[in-house]
Amino acid sequence: MARREMRHFGWGDPAHVSHGLPEGAVSLLRARVGLADAPRPPIADVPLPEPAPVDLSGARTQHMARLLRAAGKSYPDLVRMRLGLVEHAPDAVLVPGSVDELRAVLRAGVAVVPFGGGTSVVGGVEALRGSHPAVVSLDLGALDRLVSLDERSHIAVFEPGIQLPAAEGALNARGYTLGHFPQSYEYATVGGCVATRSSGQASTGYGRIDAMVLGLQAVCPAGDVDLVTVPATAAGPDLRELFVGSEGVLGVLTQIALRVRPLPAERRYDGFMFASFEHGCEAFRALEQEGAAPHVARLSDEAETEVTFALAGREGLVADLGARYLRARGVENGCIAICGWEGTLDHVESARAASLSVLRRHGAVALGRSPGRAWSRGRFDGPYLRDDLMDRGVMAETLETATTWTNLHALHRAVGEALREHAPVVMCHVSHLYETGASLYFTFIARQRDGAEIEQWREIKTAACDAIVAAGGTITHHHGVGTDHARWLRHDVSDPGIAALRALKSELDPHGVMNPGKLLA
Amino acid sequence: MARREMRHFGWGDPAHVSHGLPEGAVSLLRARVGLADAPRPPIADVPLPEPAPVDLSGARTQHMARLLRAAGKSYPDLVRMRLGLVEHAPDAVLVPGSVDELRAVLRAGVAVVPFGGGTSVVGGVEALRGSHPAVVSLDLGALDRLVSLDERSHIAVFEPGIQLPAAEGALNARGYTLGHFPQSYEYATVGGCVATRSSGQASTGYGRIDAMVLGLQAVCPAGDVDLVTVPATAAGPDLRELFVGSEGVLGVLTQIALRVRPLPAERRYDGFMFASFEHGCEAFRALEQEGAAPHVARLSDEAETEVTFALAGREGLVADLGARYLRARGVENGCIAICGWEGTLDHVESARAASLSVLRRHGAVALGRSPGRAWSRGRFDGPYLRDDLMDRGVMAETLETATTWTNLHALHRAVGEALREHAPVVMCHVSHLYETGASLYFTFIARQRDGAEIEQWREIKTAACDAIVAAGGTITHHHGVGTDHARWLRHDVSDPGIAALRALKSELDPHGVMNPGKLLA
Repeated sequence: MARREMRHFGWGDPAHVSHGLPEGAVSLLRARVGLADAPRPPIADVPLPEPAPVDLSGARTQHMARLLRAAGKSYPDLVRMRLGLVEHAPDAVLVPGSVDELRAVLRAGVAVVPFGGGTSVVGGVEALRGSHPAVVSLDLGALDRLVSLDERSHIAVFEPGIQLPAAEGALNARGYTLGHFPQSYEYATVGGCVATRSSGQASTGYGRIDAMVLGLQAVCPAGDVDLVTVPATAAGPDLRELFVGSEGVLGVLTQIALRVRPLPAERRYDGFMFASFEHGCEAFRALEQEGAAPHVARLSDEAETEVTFALAGREGLVADLGARYLRARGVENGCIAICGWEGTLDHVESARAASLSVLRRHGAVALGRSPGRAWSRGRFDGPYLRDDLMDRGVMAETLETATTWTNLHALHRAVGEALREHAPVVMCHVSHLYETGASLYFTFIARQRDGAEIEQWREIKTAACDAIVAAGGTITHHHGVGTDHARWLRHDVSDPGIAALRALKSELDPHGVMNPGKLLA
Repeated sequence: MARREMRHFGWGDPAHVSHGLPEGAVSLLRARVGLADAPRPPIADVPLPEPAPVDLSGARTQHMARLLRAAGKSYPDLVRMRLGLVEHAPDAVLVPGSVDELRAVLRAGVAVVPFGGGTSVVGGVEALRGSHPAVVSLDLGALDRLVSLDERSHIAVFEPGIQLPAAEGALNARGYTLGHFPQSYEYATVGGCVATRSSGQASTGYGRIDAMVLGLQAVCPAGDVDLVTVPATAAGPDLRELFVGSEGVLGVLTQIALRVRPLPAERRYDGFMFASFEHGCEAFRALEQEGAAPHVARLSDEAETEVTFALAGREGLVADLGARYLRARGVENGCIAICGWEGTLDHVESARAASLSVLRRHGAVALGRSPGRAWSRGRFDGPYLRDDLMDRGVMAETLETATTWTNLHALHRAVGEALREHAPVVMCHVSHLYETGASLYFTFIARQRDGAEIEQWREIKTAACDAIVAAGGTITHHHGVGTDHARWLRHDVSDPGIAALRALKSELDPHGVMNPGKLLA
């Protein structure tokens, strides 16, 4: 475990010093949500359940080792950590240094939870024993190499445990990029991104992780699966797409061949305002359907725009324009968008020109670079802000979905209405564009219900998920299934689809040791 | 069976009148391959095995109904039809008019071979009984509607049995296109393309069929699978990618939601010459990796270029340039390429300019529009030419693969060498580009070995497939697996991968009635 560890009760480096909530946030929260009078620090020592014995060489059973692998980083995970109510913890942590060592763990007759960056927000690394006498966390941190880079073919082969910044660093040094920047970027691993079918903030341009996987090797309890690295094939069903998103329930990815791209010389992010969310969505749809979409494309709805301005100060974001200008252009109470182009200088210039022509036709008002810079500076800060909110007794949680362009507004309304029943602040953005539709990413904020934090969360989560599937959205567009979304998966794939996945698992993992209780729970 | 039927012994309309081999072909074949002295017509009446009784209402058992569903259109299929050596035929043909009727066929306790356009060239519709008392051909020709077109979201929902020209016609009438043009276009069905993971001549621009599938419904013996139509999802393994390429062994696709695009106002196809195949590949790699690839991108190797010129006459293709010009530019003995751009007038102009800049930098010599027109005119003619060759005792067969750019030439050499052991004319082209690699499509021509036509074919096919997998290519990039490639599938997906697919099949098709002997044979 030579990698950076996160603090167990929140996001990020244990040495991270919070500067508290921004001033704009405090007044907004006081007015609309409520804040605890006194800060509520996490408890100092989190008790863990008594460990079952694990007879595996190299098993680490120290309290801190177990604690740091006991949960992901979902809101309920952090609630439990902060309150000292951790129900499940691995009985031991294993850190295999080779694929052979890894195979031995899968043969030990204990439940195995593959652990990459530990950033799951859906319970994906919950240490559940299933029907086994013990459960171990299989920390992949020692399998962290860039195995090879084929510069002619733009293909990099990675071991699973390499964290995204290290992967980017190794590629950047040779002039390449993976282009994959989820909000969990600072800690997430390549294997974790593939196993959870991840998408990143620039996936509109670079594609989701599933679009990058060309081949892979996985160690399963029943044997090693090896899928040849080819750009495309007609050789039957695509097993790559079974392991992508398999969330550790079939086996452990040990090598993954991913498409990479030249490191962009230029990255330019601009801000825009639209008169309304509907106007912005129409512009984004046109961008994508006319082949003029930027790499990064985010559009906040009216509620998120208002909060964005409140947090940053409108002047900070649009200093050179001012409220009067926005009012004159009819977008003062509208929606903010960020568009970002990446590539060679020439490419950025021509791609941006193509985007601007579509955006202007759809009534976008250009805000210049400052909103883009502000977004880019804070693009990985959301989880820190969540910790600060929890310090003040505030629940901040996110959930997300995707649907067709035609269904987008009905889904936005339905989920928004479901959330507003439970939370005073509900906001949303579009952050991934497709020719056929887009994602919707909701954030909701409410005063914590003291002593019933988890129940409160479960009520809201259930209402939102029910609303998502009733309105035709996928139960998740980037977070994955884990434990939290498992009961809604059948709405995406139908019961026979679930049965097919179970059959597949039974074949590759006949004793059910791999990550029990996730995905197919 | 209201659709156009093909003649049973060859490609195309029974009313098709052959004009014989082109003059250039005759002299080339006489010199290098040999031709039968007298034409060899197919036998008039093809005997079929005695049918087993099938107790299903609507079962058609007439000789012609059975004959027309007894085989696909592979070279060995046509050899058997021409010689009257048909070993397997469906005991009856069913043409369900509704999904309920279709379900009834799957419950009848007989083997079921889904039949779309019947264009398989890998034995995909071979009427094998497996362990069942009878086998029926499930003709999907009556399930042939465009169910819906969502113009805002660019999504069309089709029933499986609609043929591609009808699908294009219905979309074109509303200003859209699927953009999917395999060589089997005139007969292939939407369901067949999805079930075989098809790619088309313009897939470099429009994407393969797998890139277009957003949702689907399938009727399986164990139940109906329904996968929600969404642009993207992180909800676990992607079951869409299991049904795409499932070749009828899991169930029958009954509805498929596909991404469509606006009908292009302009299509422009140009010809180019390169000094060598290596030069051309480098240019094509740069096109794709610099984001400047055309919709259609084909590059013939030296051998295919020579044959192309011999068939068409060099003057016909490059009339305005002439051999002297090509000699002066150093490409006289080089390779011909076709690049095609599609879209609005503006888009074609700017995309073509971007491509030309890359092509020129890589030494391409522009040949103007005539080679593009010639290719476009004859783009679906290959199968007719094959019939004419078989009339003269000549075997003409194709096979294909894909690999990374780095491995492309080693694979090209290895397969070429394997084929040249058996066939005097061996040629190849690249026709689908990816950032990470490309496809290779081989054609080989040899004098038929009288009385041992199938054995001859099997020897060559085996040598080529062995060479493909030994050199790291996928066993198939567009034709699919069927019966012919099944024994090599394990090189793509490894034995545990095959076991996983078998487990999946056992779950969805517990009695193994669906298309026995294909894919997982």
